[in-house]
Amino acid sequence: MKSKLGEDCLNKIEEKIGYTFNNKSNIGLALTHSSYANEKKNRNLQSNERIEFLGDSVLNLIVSDHLYNNYEELSEGELTKMRASIVCEQTLSDCAKKLDLGDYVLLGKGEELSGGRSRNALLCDLFESIIGVVYLDGGFEPARKFVYKSLEKAFNDARDGRLFTDYKTALQETAQKKGDTHIRYKIVNESGPDHDKTYFSQVSINKSIKGKGAGKSKKEAEQNAAKEALKTIS
Amino acid sequence: MKSKLGEDCLNKIEEKIGYTFNNKSNIGLALTHSSYANEKKNRNLQSNERIEFLGDSVLNLIVSDHLYNNYEELSEGELTKMRASIVCEQTLSDCAKKLDLGDYVLLGKGEELSGGRSRNALLCDLFESIIGVVYLDGGFEPARKFVYKSLEKAFNDARDGRLFTDYKTALQETAQKKGDTHIRYKIVNESGPDHDKTYFSQVSINKSIKGKGAGKSKKEAEQNAAKEALKTIS
Repeated sequence: MKSKLGEDCLNKIEEKIGYTFNNKSNIGLALTHSSYANEKKNRNLQSNERIEFLGDSVLNLIVSDHLYNNYEELSEGELTKMRASIVCEQTLSDCAKKLDLGDYVLLGKGEELSGGRSRNALLCDLFESIIGVVYLDGGFEPARKFVYKSLEKAFNDARDGRLFTDYKTALQETAQKKGDTHIRYKIVNESGPDHDKTYFSQVSINKSIKGKGAGKSKKEAEQNAAKEALKTIS
Repeated sequence: MKSKLGEDCLNKIEEKIGYTFNNKSNIGLALTHSSYANEKKNRNLQSNERIEFLGDSVLNLIVSDHLYNNYEELSEGELTKMRASIVCEQTLSDCAKKLDLGDYVLLGKGEELSGGRSRNALLCDLFESIIGVVYLDGGFEPARKFVYKSLEKAFNDARDGRLFTDYKTALQETAQKKGDTHIRYKIVNESGPDHDKTYFSQVSINKSIKGKGAGKSKKEAEQNAAKEALKTIS
């Protein structure tokens, strides 16, 4: 676990992502979490939040373009769903893990202690930040090359129908078809220490509880509750 | 008002959008509404729905890139808000109107009779479809050039704080800060003939009516209701 970006690290990261930066400071920008920038205010550091905003749009276009050109038989709605199944926290945080981005990110102390380095939401942002800086540094084509390499498995899984299903969206769609629209998620309990919490969620439709689920994040607990509810109401 | 795309039309459109297509059939793709494609099923026409999916992502990246590079002082959240104020139905349909895209779109009979040619949502989709085909035909840079030319006024308005405000989003944010989250919009009345309807909307928060508004579309009526509600609850 490292907390500073030495030259060794820079080289390793470049090797892992398969891109050599013209301006090496861009790597630092992508790997500076806001908690670290806030802690070192006197150094006037930029965090990766703005570049993540850019990276998100770059990723979105690269995936849209790929799907548009490879799935001529799919409608706009089907393309949108397929994109959502690829550009999701699960897939993107997996990409970040493969690149070991969590080992390199600069975190503030609080974030470090609460296990930020391995949190999916943070990893997902990191991956988008890397896309952003590759685009900033080299333009659209190097960014596309990096995304294609990282998402190869996700693209294949999507093609073969093996990707993560968004149960919350599926539940909403199913419930709406039945005319039920008052879906509420509630975190009813949590257990474990701060860095290793488990959350418990329940979902109700029109005030009647339809599913319960647990998970290592609130989102994951809600997804599992939605999955159970889908069985109940379908 | 034209219903077929002759060579004259193609030339005029190219002139208006400032781009010469390598493959002229791309213009037809952008201007074929699903209602027309459905009506001419025997001709196996593609509608512009899929290319609009692509154009939407292209537009999103071009605007994100512009904002990222021109507003270094803005946070991620502020960039997101500014982008939403630019990439909205009002701005995009204005762009389509300036290019007279409504005059060229191929519509089915029902859509034609119900005034689709001048409906903002349809015009907005048309504008995104044109972005999509310029990108498909010529790549990212021609698409960027076209978007910059079309959005010049919107970019300037955003810079000077003159852009359309999304009152529904603003109401939601304000209400949530107060802990009120049950916002409901309802179309309570409509008047006028099919091609020139006026809609009346009311918005309630926690079952108490907070605002009323009228407009030429349901969305516009809801925006006006939200605007009134904001005055009541702020």
